[in-house]
Amino acid sequence: MTTTASPFAAIILAAGKGTRMKSDTHKVLHKIAGRAMLDHLMASVAELGPQRTAVVVGAGREQIEKAVEGRAVTCLQEPQLGTGHAVQQAQAALEGFGGDVLVLYGDVPFVKAETMRAMLERLHGADRPAVVVLGFEPEDPLAYGRVIADDAGGIVKMVEFKDADESERACRLCNSGLLAARAEDLFGLLARVGNDNAQGEYYLPDIVNIAIADGRGCAVIAADSADEVAGINSRAELAGAESRWQAARRLRAMDEGATLIAPDTVFFSHDTELGRDVTIEPNVFFGPGVRVADRVLIRANSHIEGASLASGVKVGPFARLRPGTVLEEDSFIGNFVEVKNAVMHKGAKASHLTYLGDASIGAGANIGAGTITCNYDGYFKYRTTIGERAFIGSNSALVAPVTIGADAIVAAGSTVSRDVAPGELRMVRAEQLIKDGWADRFHDTMKKKKAAEKKG
Amino acid sequence: MTTTASPFAAIILAAGKGTRMKSDTHKVLHKIAGRAMLDHLMASVAELGPQRTAVVVGAGREQIEKAVEGRAVTCLQEPQLGTGHAVQQAQAALEGFGGDVLVLYGDVPFVKAETMRAMLERLHGADRPAVVVLGFEPEDPLAYGRVIADDAGGIVKMVEFKDADESERACRLCNSGLLAARAEDLFGLLARVGNDNAQGEYYLPDIVNIAIADGRGCAVIAADSADEVAGINSRAELAGAESRWQAARRLRAMDEGATLIAPDTVFFSHDTELGRDVTIEPNVFFGPGVRVADRVLIRANSHIEGASLASGVKVGPFARLRPGTVLEEDSFIGNFVEVKNAVMHKGAKASHLTYLGDASIGAGANIGAGTITCNYDGYFKYRTTIGERAFIGSNSALVAPVTIGADAIVAAGSTVSRDVAPGELRMVRAEQLIKDGWADRFHDTMKKKKAAEKKG
Amino acid sequence: MTTTASPFAAIILAAGKGTRMKSDTHKVLHKIAGRAMLDHLMASVAELGPQRTAVVVGAGREQIEKAVEGRAVTCLQEPQLGTGHAVQQAQAALEGFGGDVLVLYGDVPFVKAETMRAMLERLHGADRPAVVVLGFEPEDPLAYGRVIADDAGGIVKMVEFKDADESERACRLCNSGLLAARAEDLFGLLARVGNDNAQGEYYLPDIVNIAIADGRGCAVIAADSADEVAGINSRAELAGAESRWQAARRLRAMDEGATLIAPDTVFFSHDTELGRDVTIEPNVFFGPGVRVADRVLIRANSHIEGASLASGVKVGPFARLRPGTVLEEDSFIGNFVEVKNAVMHKGAKASHLTYLGDASIGAGANIGAGTITCNYDGYFKYRTTIGERAFIGSNSALVAPVTIGADAIVAAGSTVSRDVAPGELRMVRAEQLIKDGWADRFHDTMKKKKAAEKKG
Repeated sequence: MTTTASPFAAIILAAGKGTRMKSDTHKVLHKIAGRAMLDHLMASVAELGPQRTAVVVGAGREQIEKAVEGRAVTCLQEPQLGTGHAVQQAQAALEGFGGDVLVLYGDVPFVKAETMRAMLERLHGADRPAVVVLGFEPEDPLAYGRVIADDAGGIVKMVEFKDADESERACRLCNSGLLAARAEDLFGLLARVGNDNAQGEYYLPDIVNIAIADGRGCAVIAADSADEVAGINSRAELAGAESRWQAARRLRAMDEGATLIAPDTVFFSHDTELGRDVTIEPNVFFGPGVRVADRVLIRANSHIEGASLASGVKVGPFARLRPGTVLEEDSFIGNFVEVKNAVMHKGAKASHLTYLGDASIGAGANIGAGTITCNYDGYFKYRTTIGERAFIGSNSALVAPVTIGADAIVAAGSTVSRDVAPGELRMVRAEQLIKDGWADRFHDTMKKKKAAEKKG
Repeated sequence: MTTTASPFAAIILAAGKGTRMKSDTHKVLHKIAGRAMLDHLMASVAELGPQRTAVVVGAGREQIEKAVEGRAVTCLQEPQLGTGHAVQQAQAALEGFGGDVLVLYGDVPFVKAETMRAMLERLHGADRPAVVVLGFEPEDPLAYGRVIADDAGGIVKMVEFKDADESERACRLCNSGLLAARAEDLFGLLARVGNDNAQGEYYLPDIVNIAIADGRGCAVIAADSADEVAGINSRAELAGAESRWQAARRLRAMDEGATLIAPDTVFFSHDTELGRDVTIEPNVFFGPGVRVADRVLIRANSHIEGASLASGVKVGPFARLRPGTVLEEDSFIGNFVEVKNAVMHKGAKASHLTYLGDASIGAGANIGAGTITCNYDGYFKYRTTIGERAFIGSNSALVAPVTIGADAIVAAGSTVSRDVAPGELRMVRAEQLIKDGWADRFHDTMKKKKAAEKKG
Repeated sequence: MTTTASPFAAIILAAGKGTRMKSDTHKVLHKIAGRAMLDHLMASVAELGPQRTAVVVGAGREQIEKAVEGRAVTCLQEPQLGTGHAVQQAQAALEGFGGDVLVLYGDVPFVKAETMRAMLERLHGADRPAVVVLGFEPEDPLAYGRVIADDAGGIVKMVEFKDADESERACRLCNSGLLAARAEDLFGLLARVGNDNAQGEYYLPDIVNIAIADGRGCAVIAADSADEVAGINSRAELAGAESRWQAARRLRAMDEGATLIAPDTVFFSHDTELGRDVTIEPNVFFGPGVRVADRVLIRANSHIEGASLASGVKVGPFARLRPGTVLEEDSFIGNFVEVKNAVMHKGAKASHLTYLGDASIGAGANIGAGTITCNYDGYFKYRTTIGERAFIGSNSALVAPVTIGADAIVAAGSTVSRDVAPGELRMVRAEQLIKDGWADRFHDTMKKKKAAEKKG
């Protein structure tokens, strides 16, 4: 998507407390699909190339300042005297900016870039509206403020539900709160908004009626769906938004050629990339940063984050891929295997009960069940390097830093603390101590003890 | 909730065979949210402080007798001649009791204590009804018996669906079967109920019409929803009740400040306690006895029962916490780690592929991947005690009873069968046996063998 | 179900590209409930005992030829000139066959055998229809072709939606495409079908109107539901069919006496067999080839394929049973345990973090946590045999081929490469090397290094 025709700035309101979330984390930093609400919104804004982005903050502002550092300026609203007042707090941050302004809400994260663009373009329509409002048509309009408009989308009146008459309430087009206006119009009109209402607040939508009273036109365009402008104020609404996001993402995955045996049980992140002819069994969770190439099989109950899976890879069930995992073509990660910051080169296999951390596993190598890379000494992490076609016997511990040469064999049960040369056999195993009949005598003793205990 | 104003006794009918369950387990002992139906019901009754509780039993009575031992008396109904006859079997158990009686059903487990209380209070209303019936309004009244009542809730007539005329069938208030009456009224009226019907049974609701014929008033109050009085007669209905219970519990968890990324995939038990700012990834199962404090992160695919998780704890994905697990502040249990009857003191970590049973892990200790506490010798269990800040190298086996001192280090791959002193290094490792070129020769031999085998 | 009264042959059309699947795998080979669509259909056909089965193939024919080898002949349709033309390609394969013919579609896999039988029986009704069409009544008839029929099911006219007039469109009975006809009628009528239409294709349903024009009767019978004749053309439709199949299977499981705590999270295969009083916790996946006897408990997050679970068995949570697993009565497989091609004899237990491959575990044996059977040397697989009541200490590696005798004990942490006699204790463990104060000195050094690193 290319940038907008005219320069624009975004003001994102995020000063609200979010009390209903009952959280120490700021509402707009709660995550959907592994990404904070605010980041979803800012990503859509970023697609359009804003000149400036100002986030209006209040409670928990430190969290937001940290989150948007380098990407937006923050403007403090204190005390909080309504949405109009909130937007005014961004005026200083937009000093000297003469373009368009988009007013957005941090807790309305899924407004599409194309919708924002349409709002900005409408602002430059032939009739040059002073304000462009984003409306929506909810299934049940409840007590939302109504946008009374003519057939051409020209706004006749903005009216709060409580002030609306019967015919106005019958109108189904509601005010989402989002709007666009030229910077000078926005702040000029805002300066004239009063707070003569029950709450004593300055309401942003009032600028529309003021502009209309001035004889200037205002316009409304409608969001694709009520979901696009749904605000998120509670954990249940958060879960609802997550659910809608996931449902859409699953459909896209299937459209693009992935088989999801039970779509409702597969959870994607905002940035998951899936190839064609990928098959995903039930109960698979993708954290952020996963790329999956063509013809990959992901079996049930796998948990994958920060990993790259090349064509022909098979993982799971019960695979656990952590950040930094790179699985090259046709490699295999089986059940109860964890991989972190490690590369499985082409065709390498780790089938069972293994931990591979900070490691490079050569092409065609076979990692036996129960193998552990000992990559940490309590202070530092160290790397394990395993050569091509090497065979690591089951239940081995590889004490990093350590290198196992190509075609080498580590015997089962070995703890390897020194490098193994290519083609070498390394065995670390004590003598087989045999005690004939010992177990029989032990059983006798213990059975008596157990019997005594029961009596006693 | 405080006890009721007047003393009351509960009669719970549970003599039915539950044939449709196709189970060797008595119907009312099947579980929802980890607790038997009967126990859900008895817990609600217990909130009101009953003087006596009598459970009428028939088929499978031994199972129920065992289940309610010490909490209720059981009364055998044999043969089973209808609900009226069933209640009569409890008369002896209520000998000498002069208060109110609540008649409940073991397979109608989710009647709320407040509903029971309302029934009992209605019994003491100014009009002193002889019987208080609990009605409900199902979405589709089907063939339920109807309660024909006046606007004040006075019952005009109880009528079976098959006997109802058009206008009676149009009435949507149905008879749940639950009722309250004074003990003397209940048994007095029951004695006059006949069995002159197709099945030859004595029907409990008949007492209402008898009382009305006597010129005494009877009253009906309505359950909040049809779900509250839904009977459970098949595994599908059991699953339906479980599903409704879980849905309500998930909403409560979210309302109280927990993030459930995919609420439908999280399963709670009847007694699960959750703090604020708890985050739960998909596919987490809570068995009975789990308490989770604030700011805990439970990652996907974890299975938790009988465990206590303190503030700041992180577990999973693929964590398996069994009864007796205590995770103190900021401790961590990673993937494929099982903990049973063990304490992780503050900040202790066990990140991968580990079994900790019958153990105490000191604050700040680090348990390497693949560590196993060998707590069982086939006859008895023994404890493992690990000191503060101790470091257990990967793939170690700790043969209990054994104590590892504070700040001690166990080298990777060690099987430790004797105590390790504080600050000591313990290493149990055989010599590294090196055979140059052995693997290369092995590969040559085996490749030939494999080739020969293929030729056949 | 017994075979049909008259001999019949099945023609299955499967020449379509399935472009919308976006797959290298032929559309009809995509799986539902672990079985290819085509195999679901062929299994239903097989119940009726067809004389011959011909599959008409086009794109990706090699895949289908391989899939149906020995069960059906394939007939190439190239170029693809419509459904009528497709059926004609099977004429040679039916040379000399004089019975009835059923025309089916590879991507309409869930037509029931009893529906097919009803179609064939209708063909032999008193009115001897020339063609029997399978109709269906979708909730929304969309643009389906309509079957205009009289009350007795005699077809008046088949009409494409685009050619239908208002009253014809009001008819809700649609053409599924499936039909039955005597071989001679079918091919005789097909020879007279033209391709004078926009696509220039030969349409199979045209034979009905031709027969009617000849003065012969044709009949329609209706499928039980639209789902029965739903075609699958995309991954989303595949997921939808899987979902409906699973929902029906879960209901059947519950009807037959299994408890599914969360039915929506349990996934069965086409051939899963479940006993009575089986309890299945959430998130359990059954691959093909699983038989579960009575009174089995399958805990959450288990993944089971090709396994047989006898009465009283308990597995999971996090059990992974692979093909060839046989769990005898009262045996137990715990968390993070993988079993492959292995028998657990009566009462044997493997509770934690274990891999048992190519093994026989004696009755009452106890396999400690972290036990690994080392069954593979990179070239061949070998067996492990464990005797009755043997006790394998935790973290042991059993290097196959190896036999552990009855009542033998393997000490924790042992790598056993030679047979252990009955009643023997085998211990493979190096000396406990003790370095007093070494850990304390190590901590001092490393803390300094860490501090230096931070400064630098």
